Amino acid sequence: MPELRKDPIIGRWVIISTERGMRPSDFAVVEEKKKGGFCPFCPGNEGTTPPEILSYRENGTKPNTPGWSLRVVANKFPALRVEGALNREGEGVYDKMNGIGAHEVIIESPNHNETLSTISVKNFEDVLWAFRDRMVDLGKDTRLKYGLIFKNQGEAAGASLEHSHSQLIALPIVPKRVAEEIEAAKAYYSYKERCIFCDIIRQETKQGSRMISENQDFVAIAPYAPRSPFETWIVPKRHSCSFEEAQKHEYENLARIFSDTLKRIDKVLSVPPYNFILHTAPFSNGCKDYYHWHFEIVPKLVKIAGFEWGSGFYINPTPPEESARFMREAKL
Amino acid sequence: MPELRKDPIIGRWVIISTERGMRPSDFAVVEEKKKGGFCPFCPGNEGTTPPEILSYRENGTKPNTPGWSLRVVANKFPALRVEGALNREGEGVYDKMNGIGAHEVIIESPNHNETLSTISVKNFEDVLWAFRDRMVDLGKDTRLKYGLIFKNQGEAAGASLEHSHSQLIALPIVPKRVAEEIEAAKAYYSYKERCIFCDIIRQETKQGSRMISENQDFVAIAPYAPRSPFETWIVPKRHSCSFEEAQKHEYENLARIFSDTLKRIDKVLSVPPYNFILHTAPFSNGCKDYYHWHFEIVPKLVKIAGFEWGSGFYINPTPPEESARFMREAKL
Repeated sequence: MPELRKDPIIGRWVIISTERGMRPSDFAVVEEKKKGGFCPFCPGNEGTTPPEILSYRENGTKPNTPGWSLRVVANKFPALRVEGALNREGEGVYDKMNGIGAHEVIIESPNHNETLSTISVKNFEDVLWAFRDRMVDLGKDTRLKYGLIFKNQGEAAGASLEHSHSQLIALPIVPKRVAEEIEAAKAYYSYKERCIFCDIIRQETKQGSRMISENQDFVAIAPYAPRSPFETWIVPKRHSCSFEEAQKHEYENLARIFSDTLKRIDKVLSVPPYNFILHTAPFSNGCKDYYHWHFEIVPKLVKIAGFEWGSGFYINPTPPEESARFMREAKL
Repeated sequence: MPELRKDPIIGRWVIISTERGMRPSDFAVVEEKKKGGFCPFCPGNEGTTPPEILSYRENGTKPNTPGWSLRVVANKFPALRVEGALNREGEGVYDKMNGIGAHEVIIESPNHNETLSTISVKNFEDVLWAFRDRMVDLGKDTRLKYGLIFKNQGEAAGASLEHSHSQLIALPIVPKRVAEEIEAAKAYYSYKERCIFCDIIRQETKQGSRMISENQDFVAIAPYAPRSPFETWIVPKRHSCSFEEAQKHEYENLARIFSDTLKRIDKVLSVPPYNFILHTAPFSNGCKDYYHWHFEIVPKLVKIAGFEWGSGFYINPTPPEESARFMREAKL
């Protein structure tokens, strides 16, 4: 009998087809061939991107020249513009504002053939530091309310350039799904005076069936009501609402568990396309007691029928207990 | 300058890239080739589907034999099961229930090569009557709370069989997105004592820039803050919360405008994959004053990065005023 499960935070119901549970081999991942050709993100081509906002590079090398291990540049085709004042306007029943914001690209490695699953843990940590540095910097701009960090890995997941990169979009509004999650966490806290994510970590650690791995500072779990097969969350054990406020040892341990998780995903699912999103507090903060930052990773294995994001209703053919088992047992 | 626009109902903000406005020819629609091979939905193969629940057929022909113009059968691989009582259960912080519900397939035409864009207006009307008949029937089951009617057209939009069909999933819960929409319409009504959809129709009819077409009973519009290029809504002019309660002349006029809209989509975008969803009241009704049923059609033109449905935040490269103009000017 299939099961209807409710996401304890957002309240979204998901159908889990426990019977016809799809195994990793049932998902036909089409391995993407490297296309080659000119790459604006490769060393030597620095002049073809907007100038760098941040880079980690060898001592003595100049900005916008080779010698970097990580580079942050503005998106050449930004969805939002940095310049100007924020104007809000009504138009009858409708509301709009001009598209103030920032859209940046984090080029994670100089090597065109690396991915986040193959770079060293040290380099992975640098990616996390770059996320943090840019969030802290953009958070100072009072026009901006939220920094959305995400990655589209693989063309099928929306990547338009194959050289490994993540993106940061800083917005003058808080995206709906984030606001909902924060509101829901607040409601749970008002009722129980506990953080719902902390409660989830306690229960998952105890039950074990959806645990993938853990280290001193983090757990990697399959969520109870995943929208997609092999959806994976990485959650810090220490309660904190904001990614930017993590401790040094937390970034180190996050790099370890994140790298390990992506290697497991690649192993179990044959290098699938995926997306991840950082869920963290708005720049204004103000949700310290009840919100809890984390990463959500969603491999792109099933065609998301438009009706699913239109209705907020998902059918998932793989129970998270099974996906967690495959992930735990992966031989790296 | 790009624009941030707020959906007036749900409150979702969308970035509309007004500058680089993508035109229909910018979307590379890969035309799907008919694959041929055995089709369980073709006449003569009635025995390979579960027995029919409803059919419209020539007088004197027997159920589950040829002679039908439309057939409704249970999904052979249902996401939910009809049998049994509904059990709700907690598991620590989590909630679940068993997967009671119905999952039906509406086979829209006996002809394998027809689509909803090519069948006659009369046949289209029959599809709408079948939607209505099944909703009315399933609404009598007190275990069920909501009937979700949708269509995945084309493999890229999630269709697993190419013979034209829609689906109905009847659920023991109200999907999140539907509940949100109803709540938001209620809040607007409490504040203004007017239906927000009625206000939208008034403003769109007056402004005209996002109008695609209208007839006596319906308007087809590009919504103000569309998630996707060429998103199109078909909304009844008469206020009513429930699709099942439409009048006969409304089904006739809905068939006309819906058929015309799909023909325009096919013409402008070269027969793209698409999804549509019926947004209607839960079976219990109870939102008569403030909710307003309608169809939302979303062509699948852009790769939906997982981050978009994860964050509830969309970037749309085509302003709705432009998509509406292309749709209006399409020569059928």
